[in-house]
Amino acid sequence: MELISSLHNPKVVRWRSLKEKKGRDAAGIFLAEGPKMVAEALNAGFAAEAVLVRSDFHVPFPLPSGVPVYELPDHVFRSVCDTRTPQGLAAIIRFTALPLKGSLLVALDGLQDPGNMGTVIRTADAAGFDGVIVGPDCVDVFSPKVLRATMGSVFHVGLSFPPSLPEALRNYRDEGFAVISSQLDGDPFFSRAPVAPPLVLVIGNEGNGISAEVRSLATHRLRLPMRGKAESLNASVAAGIMMYDLVRSLP
Amino acid sequence: MELISSLHNPKVVRWRSLKEKKGRDAAGIFLAEGPKMVAEALNAGFAAEAVLVRSDFHVPFPLPSGVPVYELPDHVFRSVCDTRTPQGLAAIIRFTALPLKGSLLVALDGLQDPGNMGTVIRTADAAGFDGVIVGPDCVDVFSPKVLRATMGSVFHVGLSFPPSLPEALRNYRDEGFAVISSQLDGDPFFSRAPVAPPLVLVIGNEGNGISAEVRSLATHRLRLPMRGKAESLNASVAAGIMMYDLVRSLP
Repeated sequence: MELISSLHNPKVVRWRSLKEKKGRDAAGIFLAEGPKMVAEALNAGFAAEAVLVRSDFHVPFPLPSGVPVYELPDHVFRSVCDTRTPQGLAAIIRFTALPLKGSLLVALDGLQDPGNMGTVIRTADAAGFDGVIVGPDCVDVFSPKVLRATMGSVFHVGLSFPPSLPEALRNYRDEGFAVISSQLDGDPFFSRAPVAPPLVLVIGNEGNGISAEVRSLATHRLRLPMRGKAESLNASVAAGIMMYDLVRSLP
Repeated sequence: MELISSLHNPKVVRWRSLKEKKGRDAAGIFLAEGPKMVAEALNAGFAAEAVLVRSDFHVPFPLPSGVPVYELPDHVFRSVCDTRTPQGLAAIIRFTALPLKGSLLVALDGLQDPGNMGTVIRTADAAGFDGVIVGPDCVDVFSPKVLRATMGSVFHVGLSFPPSLPEALRNYRDEGFAVISSQLDGDPFFSRAPVAPPLVLVIGNEGNGISAEVRSLATHRLRLPMRGKAESLNASVAAGIMMYDLVRSLP
């Protein structure tokens, strides 16, 4: 285990750059923070470029051989982490994602809030969805806030990042997928005719909903009922209600 | 309209103190930020102590007579607001909440994340729930982040703040309410025997779930299915899935 005690060490400077999307894109890596996230990444077979251990921290599980491990004193470890009170373990993970396959997919059309993005990925995992199609106008999946909100599920579900969401959805539709657009002027969700997999559930932007182009190519346009005076639901809550209902009668 | 141009004006100092719970509790007031929140508060009949207008802002709706209106230059208006780019209108609202009545209630047992708190209140409104029982260990409902996440629904649903959540729930149970505890070791939610209103759905703390005392007094202990590798759902997503399902078959 190599000790790095300077804030100006080039490795530390590089790791610190991962807080910004620019730095992550340039380096092709991101930081997984905390023992849970590190364990999830390694267990899922993601490639770690380095493991970072705070000097006082005892690593609670065996680390993979062949991955360099660095010991950092508290102030250096802290400078690399995004959380205010980091837990003492982090890993530098190469940008890969599980390939997207399966018949239960969520697509995100301009989702902007990091908490929502991470929560949708977590909920997709919990509901038994196979993966998430992330449109180009969405918040970066590998940002620290998004990763935290996924609670590790970013390492469990497939992910794809098509350059054009409408084009990707058109291809799925042509392959026989139902494309379900959740929109406030759609038909009532709970009284829909049955929709069987393969399917893609599309969730829109927090303020503007789903883009006109995606709405027009959907095979189903559905809305959740609003019984009170609220005008809409939080995007990740709406996604959760729909995902759980779509899989409810599946074996 | 009185102009206040000093950051040190005692009124401005008092309004600025509302960013912290201590200041809100001491003054018995909170700040509603943005035209939408101000309109919702006034329309719902909440008492405004003052309306604050940024000098360049044109108020898009008539303000109630008898409420003092203050014009603040940008730097003073900004100092009072919590948002980074405030929208030009705010109101000082007295601490009152719509009384809690009805037969569809949510109770929060130690909910700590402001986004979750606000989102649960918003979802309760959308799902047609009548109100939210906020346990003493929860994040403050009138914090700026919570208010924003409610999207105005804090002015639509009843709220109560019992000093003891177990005691409050015991009273509801004795009055004939079903008390539904959502917990990871409960019975499967979707194959439950029908639960009709009156009911209270209890949502627990993000990390620790529902307290042992509340679990023990529940009439129903239920869990949402976890089909993938996720260990749990976000608290507000779980609340949304359960609320929408509990009202699904109601007229």
